[in-house]
Amino acid sequence: MKNVQGFVFDAYGTLFDVYSVGALGERLFPGHGAALAQLWRAKQLQYSLLRSLMGRHRDFWGITEDGLVYACKALGLELTADARERLLGAYLTLAAFPDVKPGLEALRERGLRLAILSNGEPKMLEAAAQSAGILPLLDRILSVEEVGVFKPSPRVYALAPSRLGASSAELGFVSSNAWDVAGAAAAGLRALWIQRSTAEPPEELGFAAERIVHALTDLPPLLAR
Amino acid sequence: MKNVQGFVFDAYGTLFDVYSVGALGERLFPGHGAALAQLWRAKQLQYSLLRSLMGRHRDFWGITEDGLVYACKALGLELTADARERLLGAYLTLAAFPDVKPGLEALRERGLRLAILSNGEPKMLEAAAQSAGILPLLDRILSVEEVGVFKPSPRVYALAPSRLGASSAELGFVSSNAWDVAGAAAAGLRALWIQRSTAEPPEELGFAAERIVHALTDLPPLLAR
Repeated sequence: MKNVQGFVFDAYGTLFDVYSVGALGERLFPGHGAALAQLWRAKQLQYSLLRSLMGRHRDFWGITEDGLVYACKALGLELTADARERLLGAYLTLAAFPDVKPGLEALRERGLRLAILSNGEPKMLEAAAQSAGILPLLDRILSVEEVGVFKPSPRVYALAPSRLGASSAELGFVSSNAWDVAGAAAAGLRALWIQRSTAEPPEELGFAAERIVHALTDLPPLLAR
Repeated sequence: MKNVQGFVFDAYGTLFDVYSVGALGERLFPGHGAALAQLWRAKQLQYSLLRSLMGRHRDFWGITEDGLVYACKALGLELTADARERLLGAYLTLAAFPDVKPGLEALRERGLRLAILSNGEPKMLEAAAQSAGILPLLDRILSVEEVGVFKPSPRVYALAPSRLGASSAELGFVSSNAWDVAGAAAAGLRALWIQRSTAEPPEELGFAAERIVHALTDLPPLLAR
């Protein structure tokens, strides 16, 4: 991947472990934490797609709340105002995967520009990056809120070259979400799939990753090749 | 629902039972039929949304095949050419729910115009309607292929009044898919949710059904009210 000037990262599932909310969910709803985290995440994602296609955008904080409300209703869990506030609040302090900080540091030492490009609402993203201690390692945090539509719209991916002042050929886009990789590749970015679960097959969407890695620390050795 | 001149029905899950492919899946992959049917359907739907947002439309026959390929890979099932052909072929002969034919007959006796408005590719829809014995009861089969984007794009729902020569206020749109109901309501149609699983909550998408029914045979009594 010679000539790469910077990397742009998806946030949720790629840098931040969204299933870490499951631990709090388990404390609030014993025996249901894992199911809640999984359905909540699935609905959050589905609502981002549905609302984009409906032309009825709502920011990610709003659809994260909508997904939580749906998941609790579907699982028969009573969502009190306190539980709602605590679970949503967990999105502001998500854990980062252990490879994230060392990976970003190694890339930064090589002079690369680093950014987030996420469905997240800007304040959510900044709070999570701050909490995970990676905010000083990032040059930019780019949010879909700038274009008012969610991934995988090509308008979102076009933000990366536009805002970082680099060509698509000079930027690597890294995501753990296989559909996000396909979307970025379809939009002309150099897409890398960080496959956090090796059992997961790629999506059948007609666009493949340029490279597959398993941790952010796998990225620096790719630069010379 | 006075002044209703016609009903427009979603096809898959509303008229046709997509989980009926599970029985064939179970014969081909003993012990995995239900999981295969569920994941296949989920991916088919997800791919329709992702491709629409990517601006990379592929017809429903194609994404149904893509969803099947993904589901088999994810579940570790070897999809032979024969199994692929038989499973896809099952989409042409899906079972209709038992309330469908009597419901359509009763509505037709009252002089209403009846149509399908589906993500399906026209030949798939006609084959399934023929196989289920409801083709003669339908005035029109409308497919998203006319606009090249999937539900819940408002361009899809706009086909109903346009092609049936009626205003949105004169047409009821009926779907078992709660997100489809929200999409139709957002697009200005009179949306009815046929709730085939009573445990399922409505979607948190900001647009509610005008009415909730549990079978097509619940529709005729609504017309006088």
